[in-house]
Order: sequence, then C-alpha cells, then structure tokens
Amino acid sequence: MFEQDFLGFINDNKLVDTTGRTLLAVSGGLDSTVMANLFSCVNLPFAIAHVNFGLRGTDSDEDARFVEQLAGQYGVPFHLTRFDTAQWAAEQGVSIQMAARDLRYQWFGSIRQQYSYSRVATAHHLNDVLETMLLNLTRGTGLAGLHGIAVRQEHAQVGTLIRPLLFAHRDQLVTYAQANGLTHREDRSNADDYYARNRIRHHVIPTLTGLNPGLWQTLPRTVERLRAAEQLMQLELTRSWRQLTQTEPDGTIRVPIRQLMELDEGVFRLTEWLRPFGFTPEQVRQIWATLEREPGGTFDSATYRIVRERQWLLLSLLKVTPLTGYKSDLQIIGSGAVISLGDCSVRVDVIERSAEFVPDAELSVAWLDADRLAEPLTLRIWQHGDRFRPLGLAGTKLVSDLLNDLKLEQRDRAQTLVLLSGHDIAWVVGRRIAHRFRVRPDTRRLVRLTQIQGSGPAERPPL
Amino acid sequence: MFEQDFLGFINDNKLVDTTGRTLLAVSGGLDSTVMANLFSCVNLPFAIAHVNFGLRGTDSDEDARFVEQLAGQYGVPFHLTRFDTAQWAAEQGVSIQMAARDLRYQWFGSIRQQYSYSRVATAHHLNDVLETMLLNLTRGTGLAGLHGIAVRQEHAQVGTLIRPLLFAHRDQLVTYAQANGLTHREDRSNADDYYARNRIRHHVIPTLTGLNPGLWQTLPRTVERLRAAEQLMQLELTRSWRQLTQTEPDGTIRVPIRQLMELDEGVFRLTEWLRPFGFTPEQVRQIWATLEREPGGTFDSATYRIVRERQWLLLSLLKVTPLTGYKSDLQIIGSGAVISLGDCSVRVDVIERSAEFVPDAELSVAWLDADRLAEPLTLRIWQHGDRFRPLGLAGTKLVSDLLNDLKLEQRDRAQTLVLLSGHDIAWVVGRRIAHRFRVRPDTRRLVRLTQIQGSGPAERPPL
Repeated sequence: MFEQDFLGFINDNKLVDTTGRTLLAVSGGLDSTVMANLFSCVNLPFAIAHVNFGLRGTDSDEDARFVEQLAGQYGVPFHLTRFDTAQWAAEQGVSIQMAARDLRYQWFGSIRQQYSYSRVATAHHLNDVLETMLLNLTRGTGLAGLHGIAVRQEHAQVGTLIRPLLFAHRDQLVTYAQANGLTHREDRSNADDYYARNRIRHHVIPTLTGLNPGLWQTLPRTVERLRAAEQLMQLELTRSWRQLTQTEPDGTIRVPIRQLMELDEGVFRLTEWLRPFGFTPEQVRQIWATLEREPGGTFDSATYRIVRERQWLLLSLLKVTPLTGYKSDLQIIGSGAVISLGDCSVRVDVIERSAEFVPDAELSVAWLDADRLAEPLTLRIWQHGDRFRPLGLAGTKLVSDLLNDLKLEQRDRAQTLVLLSGHDIAWVVGRRIAHRFRVRPDTRRLVRLTQIQGSGPAERPPL
Repeated sequence: MFEQDFLGFINDNKLVDTTGRTLLAVSGGLDSTVMANLFSCVNLPFAIAHVNFGLRGTDSDEDARFVEQLAGQYGVPFHLTRFDTAQWAAEQGVSIQMAARDLRYQWFGSIRQQYSYSRVATAHHLNDVLETMLLNLTRGTGLAGLHGIAVRQEHAQVGTLIRPLLFAHRDQLVTYAQANGLTHREDRSNADDYYARNRIRHHVIPTLTGLNPGLWQTLPRTVERLRAAEQLMQLELTRSWRQLTQTEPDGTIRVPIRQLMELDEGVFRLTEWLRPFGFTPEQVRQIWATLEREPGGTFDSATYRIVRERQWLLLSLLKVTPLTGYKSDLQIIGSGAVISLGDCSVRVDVIERSAEFVPDAELSVAWLDADRLAEPLTLRIWQHGDRFRPLGLAGTKLVSDLLNDLKLEQRDRAQTLVLLSGHDIAWVVGRRIAHRFRVRPDTRRLVRLTQIQGSGPAERPPL
C-alpha cells in the first residue's frame, strides 16, 4: 500500500528512470532508513552514502556502523566519509549547519560523478516542507522560501537531486517502519535548526492541524501552486530583463532609467534582477531613490558596480588587485596568500610535492602545477566569451557551455568565479581546472587553491 | 511618535490625498477606535460608518451607541445601518461571516457613493496579516492567500479601500489607546473565524515570535515581496493568455492545444486562466488529461462550456432558459420566480407600488418599471460589444467601459451578469440599471430583482 504510493509518486514526478542507480543519502535516522527499505522493496537499483560529521563523538561513529550494516543487508554499494565539520566551519567562518550542508552536498556530487550514479536522493517528507515554510515565514522570506523543498532539483553541487518521500507524512513513515520491523538511529544532525524545528513541530503544527485536519492533504497542492507561481514570476523577470537591457561588447549592462521606472513593480523587479549580482534589497532601495534625482552615485556589491548616469544605470564588473610574488617561498597549507573579490576569496598555498601526495576530492580545492602557472593570479567573475580546456577534455570549451552543462541555478551561474594565470583561465572556481595546469608525474611544486566561500543564499531547505 | 509612523505610512503608500474625506469603518473595538483617533489627531477629514449586524442582541446595540458618541466627540458625520445578518445568510445560503462581509461592503460602497467620500478605511493591522497568512496556509492556498491583506485595493463593491494601520502591531495599538485614554468595546464580530484566529493568536504566533523576535519587522517586507511576486505572475498569465488565444466574433475563445502543451507550467496556467470562468482545478486536471488523448469531451462550469476539438479547446458561454410569464400575477416579495445561470440567480418579484415606496440602497437589488419591461427576461454573462444607457447618463456606454470604470478584479469582471429584457440590457447585475427601465413618478407596478449570490472566492481577508 505505502510502497504503491511511493512508486506512484516516483512515476508521477518522473523521479527515477529505468536505467541508472540512485545514490541515497542515509543518515541512519527514521526517514532515510525507510527510504532505503522502499527502494529495496520496489527493486529500484541504489547505493548508500553516509557522512560522519564528527559532531557527536562515538554516537556519530555508531551511526556510520549502523548504515554500513544496512548497506550490507541490502547488498548495495556503500560510501562513507568523515569531515571535521566544526573545524571546517571555523576555518570558513560559517555556521556548523551551513558547513555540514556544503560538505555533504559537495561530497555527494563528487561520489555521484565518480561512480556515475544518475541522481542523489534525500529523505525529506511533508513535515519537513511545512516546518521549512513556517521557519522561513518566521525569519522573513520571498516566494522561494515558502514552496521550500523541490521534488526534483538540478543542484549546483550535487547534480540531479530528488526527494522521493515528499508525498508522505512522518506518521506514515513511523507506521511503515514498525510494520516492517525496521530499526533506526536517533537523528539529531540538524544542529542549528534543531531547536527551532522542534518548537514548530511540537507547538505550532499541532494547533494548525487541529484547525484543519485536512492540512496534510492540501499542503502538496499549496506547495505546487506556489512553486508554479514562482516559475511564472521568474519567466516574467527573465523576459522583461532581456527586453529592457542592452549588453555592451565589454560585458557592461545598460538599464534605461525611464523605461525601468515605467514598469509595474519596478523596485521589486530591480531587487530580484540585481540579487544575483550581489546587491542587497537595501542597496536597491537606495539606487531607486536616486532615479528621481539628479544623475550621479556609485553602488558596489562584492563583485559588481552600478553607476547612475543621466539616462542609464550601468552595471559592470568590479576590478580586483592581482596577486604576484606568491611563488617566491613555500608555505604551510592554510597559511598562504589570499586573493579576494568582495566576500569571495581563494587561498593560494605553494608546497613541495611529497611522495605520498593524494589530492583532496573536494570541488572547493584545486591542485595545480606551480611552475607552469604564470604571475599574476587574478580573480574575476566569468564573462561571456571566456574559453579554456577543461581537465581531460580534447579541445577547448566556452565557460558558458560548461555552466550550462552543470545546470546551475541563475544565481550560482552569475556568481561563478574564474582564476586567471596571466590571461589564461587556470580554474573555474569550484567547478573545473584547466588541463594545461594539471599536476603531472614530473610536477615538483604544487599550488593548492582553496575556495573560501562567503555566506550562501538566505533561504534554503533543511539539511 | 506613533502618529508620525501613521502619517509616514499613509504618505509612503499614498493612501490619502489632500482632498476628499475618508469613510472609516468603525466597529467600536480597539483597532477601529484607535484608527478614528489617529485620523482626528493628524487632522485628516473623515466620517464614521458603523454596521449593527444584530448578532449579539443588546450588546450590538450598545456598540452602535458607543460609536455614535465617538463620532459626536470628533464632530464628524456618522452613518449607521442595521442588518438582520442571520436571516439574510439563511436566505442566501451562505455563512454568517460571508453574509456579514457582503452586507457590510455593499453598504460601505453605497454610503461612499451617496456622500462622495473618496475612500473607505478598515483598521486591519499586522497581526491580522500574519493570522490570515497562517489561517490560509492551514486551509490550503495560493499566492493571493499568503500576502493576504492589501494596503490599498480597488474593491468591486466598496471602491477604493485602504488599510492605514497595516504597519502596526496590535500591542502598539493597545499602548496608544492607553496613553491617550481611549475606551473601546470588546470586538467579537468575526463570528466563524473567531475560534480559529484565537487559536493562532494565542498558540501559534507566540511560538513563532519566540523563535524570531524580529518577525514583526520582516513581515511587511515578506508581504510586499509576495504581493509583488503575485503581480508579476498575473502579468505573465495575462500576457501569455492574450498571445495564446483567439476570440471569435461571437465571443467564443479558441485555445490552440499544441501551443498550450508546450508552455512551461501549462496545467497551472490553465487552472488560473479558467478559474474566472468558473472551472475548478479538478476539472482542469480532467481537461488536461484529454489533451494527450483523442478529441472529444465537454466540460461545463456554472456559466461556461469547454469543448475539446482536435486542435483547439473552445471556450464559450452556456445558454440559459429565458423567463416568461413572470408579469402575469403579483407576488409577495421573496416568493418570486427565479432565473438561474449555474450558481448565480436573480429572483424576480412583481408588486403593486404603494405610496410609501422607498427602494433598497443595496447594489444587489434593482427596482424597475414592470410595464416597460419586455418578456422574456434572460440572464447571461456580459459580452464584448454589450452597450446600454446607465441610469442618469445622457448617452449609452459599453458594458466593458463601465466595468473598467469600476476597476473590478479580473474574476469579478469576467463573471459579471447582465439581465436582458427581450434583447435590451435592463440591469448589469449588482452594478447599474438601465435608464429606460427606471422607476418613474407614474410607475404603477414594480419589478424587484434580487441577486442571489453563489459562494465567493475561497481566499479572502478577514472581516
């Protein structure tokens, strides 16, 4: 019965095709344990990945052992990694929760690529959806924060990400687990959110379902309507931005002020349009205020500059200071020079190659041949026309085509950085290195590039 | 201080211009009493209207006396009406709450017109906004139900409707009332909603504000973002509907199936497009399911029919049975013949004119000269090209222009009915009667037409 609902949901939403194996993210908690059992029951091919965040000592280690045994029972491939989440979070200056999410998603993406899994599945369900809606509503949100968790998503780091339990209520999972004698571990990994979600789960949602017991039936439709509404809103934003603006050969975008002011919801549009370029709603309010006054005024985001001329707003890339002399002496990893563009930074460490050199698998780190790199190193946002030869590819490729292939969201796409060696692209940051700067058998000195991320988007689904 | 916030909010949102008087809806409760005092303090010209819904016996009468005294203290015009809400609701087959809202809004509209007030103000505040969002979320909703209450709205029945307290939290109103020694009555008129709102007010919102005390600061921005998002979504819907469809000379609308199926979010679009024509989301799902099959299939809403042809969906008006013989005998009011179009009906009573005849002020009732009306009477949705001479106007006017002048929302506009006497428009139902059928000094027999409304839209702000 419940298996039928599960299969129906997967088919209705075309989540899984007949070929290829799905990589299940399994924490060992109730939700993901049920998900693994469902995949097994309906004979969909899968593998299991587990992340040990090292946040709860031996408890974390026992979770990992539990999931490994589970994979053994189902006879499916098992992937395990361990992060020192707390240390990484401290290094990057982000919250434990953000660190855990980023590490986890990056690792899923790399495992998925390495083993050619078709997609990654997480065990979010209907309660997560409502909790996320209410949590985001509490914190202040736009439309994206209200429809919350997508059934299917092309995720920048993970690739295709699916949520095959999004049709189910937590109670249904509990019932299913009991009926099938499934054991599971207590899942307490949503560190930062844990308190807030619990308050909402135990104090808010029971009142709301008391007022309308049909809430769980109407919720998927509400979510679907909000998701579709956002989609149409985005179409209108894209269409009108294209119609309104002109792009110069050097990449500068011209926004005609008179036409901008004649649009319905001009402030809201400008806020949404400029968000991927790093401008805050408060800056957009300031920019808007200048439109009715005399020309003049400059506004900088981390990566872009807006100049208010008489008839136009000019949107162009901020220039950055190039880094030179970084090859002059060897550095201990983590102590290297930092090259920054607003709140995005890359740390550059130069080290002697040792016999047992094994490069990190993380996408946020790149290893290059120091002696093949030219000076200076420069960091900038990618531009249309940028071209390089990605590692392992026979010929060159446009950066725009690479980003298309990765199916990045608009914001991630616009914010992608390239690191230049002289005039050549050495690294599309966090995505691909250039073939010519790769580490070869004869490489003696290594450059290790580490992306240090700024704060992510304000609205997101839970871990 | 609070007066400054109030004036700032009014100016920022251009709610009140310097000329004209605002009609304040005052129940006598805390919120509306504070609103009246604020208007008086900042010297904005106003009048006060109070509705006695007759739902709480002498309590209701004392509310009315309290508000009348208030108007006396401020020295402003006072308007009072009394409805037998319970009886009217029973007659119309609607809830008490819906009846109260409809009666109240209709009456405000008629008073506003009669005394040339510029606009009507209600005392909704931030708590109402959040309660409405959560209530609608609980019941299932689209985007419109989440941004909830508009700061300024062109309301079909009322005209310009403003909410000048929408910047304020209830606590601020309480503080202001205490500081200024304002007394008020206990407001318990939101009959049906009362329990649900109280549960949300006392059990849900405290938990949410406990998680983020800044909730009240971010809420207006959230509301504004959702409202603007809906506006852009509606623009996209309107633009693509115009681009997609063709309208025949007889008013039939052709929707090309192939192009429809190629659109992003086709099901959602079709649901929203067909909603004003009375089709339910479930019907649209059924219609969509036929698109991938062989031609054939007919779908009726209360007022429209969709036929699925090979390449087109054809959308046209349902025909109705005309009413004849209604003039043959005199009827007691309320017992007359009923002419129906789906769930919209008009009751037709013919009565002898008495010396003390005074027509009702309600827009849902029309009085005409029975002996000037031709048979049959027919009810249909208005069509492009419909033209008549509205009461008091020198020449004729297109119905479409009349509806434009009234600034109706898309749904109300599309659903507007006309009542025909033979081939002539006698009444644009609920809006205007035709000049030629008006009651004159020599009229002997009267026709009283009463609009009996179906259920209204599912999402709405509170009373």
